[in-house]
Amino acid sequence: MYIAMNRFRIALGKEKTFIQIWCDRETYLEEVPGFRSFNLLQGPTHEDHTLFASHTVWESKSAFEKWTKSDAFKKAHANASPNKDIYLGPPVFEGFEAVV
Amino acid sequence: MYIAMNRFRIALGKEKTFIQIWCDRETYLEEVPGFRSFNLLQGPTHEDHTLFASHTVWESKSAFEKWTKSDAFKKAHANASPNKDIYLGPPVFEGFEAVV
Repeated sequence: MYIAMNRFRIALGKEKTFIQIWCDRETYLEEVPGFRSFNLLQGPTHEDHTLFASHTVWESKSAFEKWTKSDAFKKAHANASPNKDIYLGPPVFEGFEAVV
Repeated sequence: MYIAMNRFRIALGKEKTFIQIWCDRETYLEEVPGFRSFNLLQGPTHEDHTLFASHTVWESKSAFEKWTKSDAFKKAHANASPNKDIYLGPPVFEGFEAVV
């Protein structure tokens, strides 16, 4: 199992806007080989931001990597949001292999 | 769904020791109401450490919180490892609610 996470620091008060972006978004993941599940996660709120993480579970790292080179990936990222004022910096990617 | 993660920064070269600690550990989670799944995840390697995360999926935040006050929790943490030299600082807890 491989878990791909992107960590987003969202300005305080913009949490609902950020969640709505993900509700409205079409990810086309259901059609992708090796895809298991997707969730948007809301984490702790700090002094100047709330942490969110996209959380996608894959059968393997190679299934994830194939997806990043696929048409489904391009389609899912074609309409990237212009709501720049809600983000404190770019997302930080972290990929995890299940070892236990 | 609620995901409880603890982030561990492990000294380079100590990755196998850290994984072995988790292989040997009895978590007693199977018996806990609201528990769904547990994995130890290995993340990216940086200049001075490798990131790991414990990743426990719960039915709800309240199920997780009940567990932290339970005998099963005390049992699971009774034999905390003395291998202090493998950790770069204490673990950092992050709890996440699935919002999408």
